[in-house]
Amino acid sequence: MEDFKVTPWEVDGVVDYDKLIVEFGTSPLTEELIQKTAELTKSELPIFFRRRFFFSHRDYDKVLADYESGKGFFLYTGRGPSGPMHIGHIIPFFATKWLQEKFGVNLYIQVTDDEKFLFKETLGFEETKHWAYDNILDIIAVGFDPDKTFIFQNSEFTKIYEMAIPIAKKINFSMAKAVFGFNEQSKIGMIFYPAIQAAPTFFEKKRCLIPAAIDQDPYWRLQRDFAESLGYYKTAAIHSKFVPGLTSLGGKMSASKPETAVYLTDDPEEAGKKIWNFALTGGRATAKEQREKGGEPEKCVVFKWFEIFFEPDDEKLMERYRACKGGELLCGQCKRELIERVQEFLREHQERRKKAEKQVEKFKYTGELAREQWDRAIPEALKG
Amino acid sequence: MEDFKVTPWEVDGVVDYDKLIVEFGTSPLTEELIQKTAELTKSELPIFFRRRFFFSHRDYDKVLADYESGKGFFLYTGRGPSGPMHIGHIIPFFATKWLQEKFGVNLYIQVTDDEKFLFKETLGFEETKHWAYDNILDIIAVGFDPDKTFIFQNSEFTKIYEMAIPIAKKINFSMAKAVFGFNEQSKIGMIFYPAIQAAPTFFEKKRCLIPAAIDQDPYWRLQRDFAESLGYYKTAAIHSKFVPGLTSLGGKMSASKPETAVYLTDDPEEAGKKIWNFALTGGRATAKEQREKGGEPEKCVVFKWFEIFFEPDDEKLMERYRACKGGELLCGQCKRELIERVQEFLREHQERRKKAEKQVEKFKYTGELAREQWDRAIPEALKG
Repeated sequence: MEDFKVTPWEVDGVVDYDKLIVEFGTSPLTEELIQKTAELTKSELPIFFRRRFFFSHRDYDKVLADYESGKGFFLYTGRGPSGPMHIGHIIPFFATKWLQEKFGVNLYIQVTDDEKFLFKETLGFEETKHWAYDNILDIIAVGFDPDKTFIFQNSEFTKIYEMAIPIAKKINFSMAKAVFGFNEQSKIGMIFYPAIQAAPTFFEKKRCLIPAAIDQDPYWRLQRDFAESLGYYKTAAIHSKFVPGLTSLGGKMSASKPETAVYLTDDPEEAGKKIWNFALTGGRATAKEQREKGGEPEKCVVFKWFEIFFEPDDEKLMERYRACKGGELLCGQCKRELIERVQEFLREHQERRKKAEKQVEKFKYTGELAREQWDRAIPEALKG
Repeated sequence: MEDFKVTPWEVDGVVDYDKLIVEFGTSPLTEELIQKTAELTKSELPIFFRRRFFFSHRDYDKVLADYESGKGFFLYTGRGPSGPMHIGHIIPFFATKWLQEKFGVNLYIQVTDDEKFLFKETLGFEETKHWAYDNILDIIAVGFDPDKTFIFQNSEFTKIYEMAIPIAKKINFSMAKAVFGFNEQSKIGMIFYPAIQAAPTFFEKKRCLIPAAIDQDPYWRLQRDFAESLGYYKTAAIHSKFVPGLTSLGGKMSASKPETAVYLTDDPEEAGKKIWNFALTGGRATAKEQREKGGEPEKCVVFKWFEIFFEPDDEKLMERYRACKGGELLCGQCKRELIERVQEFLREHQERRKKAEKQVEKFKYTGELAREQWDRAIPEALKG
C-alpha cells in the first residue's frame, strides 16, 4: 500500500480537493478512518476508499462508533430524474452498495421528481416521472438488497410531506436563500424543497450517512443546523470527488454536454466511438515524442476513468501508470482498452437493467423496508 | 319578502360590506342569483341566502349555469385546527351543508393542520393533530352526507403534496408575499402553503365553489391567476359576512378573545352565563328610557345572532325587531330567549358530536368519496 500514498490519483491539478475541505469546513477522510472501515467490515476496501475517491467527511467517525457500539446507522442517497443516467451518476451508487453490503444497513434512495420538475422550467411533470422510472431501473441494476433498500419517488411517497413539515418550520426564507440562491422569482415549490430533501435523514432514529459528491455538502449543512432541535442526529456524510466527463478533467461529467458523457443506455458500439473521438488524454503531439518523453496520466481522462472505476486491480493500474509515463503504452492502445472495459460494463449493466424491470415493485413497495415505510403512510382503516 | 329588502341585517354600521365588494373586486350576490338558486334547488332558501349572510361572489353565476347544463360542480371548504371551534366557525358549515344537500354535490373539507402548525410559533405538531380530530367531530356533527363528503387532514392525506407541486411551480415568492405578507424570516413551510391550500380546487375537473367569509378572498385570487394555465377552472366563491363576537359588532368572533366566543364544547350553563354577562345589546341606559325610545337592534349582537342563525323564522325575527324598536321587548328578556336557543343548539350539537366519533372513519377513509380519493393515493401494488 505504501506506493499508493503518492499515487497519481491523489494529485489533481484541476480541482484542489484539499482546498475544498477548508472551504466547506469538512474533515479529511483520514487513513485511520479508512483502516477502521476495513476493520469493522472485515473486508478488503473497495477502490472508492483505497484510491480516495471519498476524501472528506462529516461525522463519519461517529457513524463508525455507532456501528461498533451496536446502535447502527443507515444510508441515504438520491437521484434527480431529469434525463438518462450516465457513468458519472452511477459510480457513487456502487460505492453505496458496498457500504450497504458490508455494514448490512438500510438504504433509502430518494428520487426527486418534484425537485427536477420544479427547478427545470421546461420539464413537464409526466416527463419527469418517466425519467424517474427510467433512472430507477439503472439504480436497481447496481444490485442493492431489495429488502434493505427503499427507493421512493417524492411525488408518490408523499408521506415525505408530513415529515418535511416540522423541518419546514425550522428553515426560514433567508436560510434557504443562502444555500440555494433563491430570489423573489423563485417558485414556492423550489423554496420548500430543502425540507423535502432533508426529511429522509429522519427516517430512522439512528445516524444517517450520506455518500455524496463534495459539492452537495451545503444542502446538508442546513439539516445539521436544526436536526438536534427536532430530536434527531445531525446527518453524517462522506464526500466524493467528481467523476470527470470525457473532454476535461475539471468538474463533473455533465448531462448537458452529451459528448462528455457515456450514458448507461448508450449502445456499447456508440459509446466506444464517443470515447475514441472525445476522450481527453495526456498524450504528446506525436507517437515519437510520447515514446521519448512518456505520457502524462495526471492530465488524462482515460487514466482517471480506469482509476475511478474501470481498473479495480491496484497493481495493474500502477503498471498502466508506469507504462504510460515510460512511453511504452500509447494513447490509442490505452483508449482501446478503456473502451473494452466500458463496453463490457455497459453490456452487463444493460442486462441487469432489463431484469430490474421485474424488481421495481419490490424496491418501491413490497420489499421489507419499502413495506415498512408504506405501512406508516397508509391509514389503518384502509389496510387490507 | 318585500319587507326584507330593507331589513336591518342589511344595515351594518361597522363593516361596510358594499365597500368590501369594491375593494376586493368581487361581484354582489344579486337577487337574481339568489332566486336562481331557489329555482334550481326547488327549495326554500335558507336564512343564509334570504338574509344576505352571503352577499358577494365570484363566478357563482357560472356555477349555477354548470349545474343547470349538467356539468355539475363541487364544494370545497376548510378549517384550521388550532383550538376548539366556536359558533362563528360552525355557521358557514351549516350553509355549506345546505348547498351540498340541495345541489347533491361532493364536498371536500380540508383540515389544515400543516398550516396551523407552521404559522403558529408555539403550537406543537401533535397538539395541532389533536385539534384536527377534535374539530372534525364538530364538522361531522353538522350532518354532511358521509358518501359525498371527504374530510382530510393535510398531514395525513399527503397526496395533496403531489397535487400541489404543479401549483407550486406557478407561484413565485413575490406573488405569495403579496397575498400572505411573507418576509425573509417566514418559514419555508409557510411560503409553500398557498399551493397546498389551492390543490383541492383541482380535485375534480369541474368548477369548484368555495363558501367562505369575504376576508378569505385574496387567497383564492392566486388560484384564479393560474388555474386555467393548468387546464382547470378558476375557482368560484360565495362570500359571507362575519359572525360577530359577543362583545362587538365589528369584525369576527375570535378564539383569541374567549369572552367573545361561545365554543361548541362549552357547557350550556356556562355558555348562558357568558352571553348574559358579555353580550353587547342595543339597549338604552335605563329600562324607562328604553320603553320610551325603543332599543337599537342595528347595534345589538343579540339581535345579530338571532338574525344570522338562531331565529330561522323571518316573521318572528321581524316581530322581535319591531318589539325592540317599539320599546316593548327589553334586553334582559331578549337575552334570555337567545340563551335558550343557544343552549338548545349546544345540547343538540354536543349529542351529534358524541355520535360523530363513530363516523370519523367514514368521512376520512371509508365513505364513497373518501375511498375514491385514497384509492388514487395508494399504489396498486399495496392494495388488497
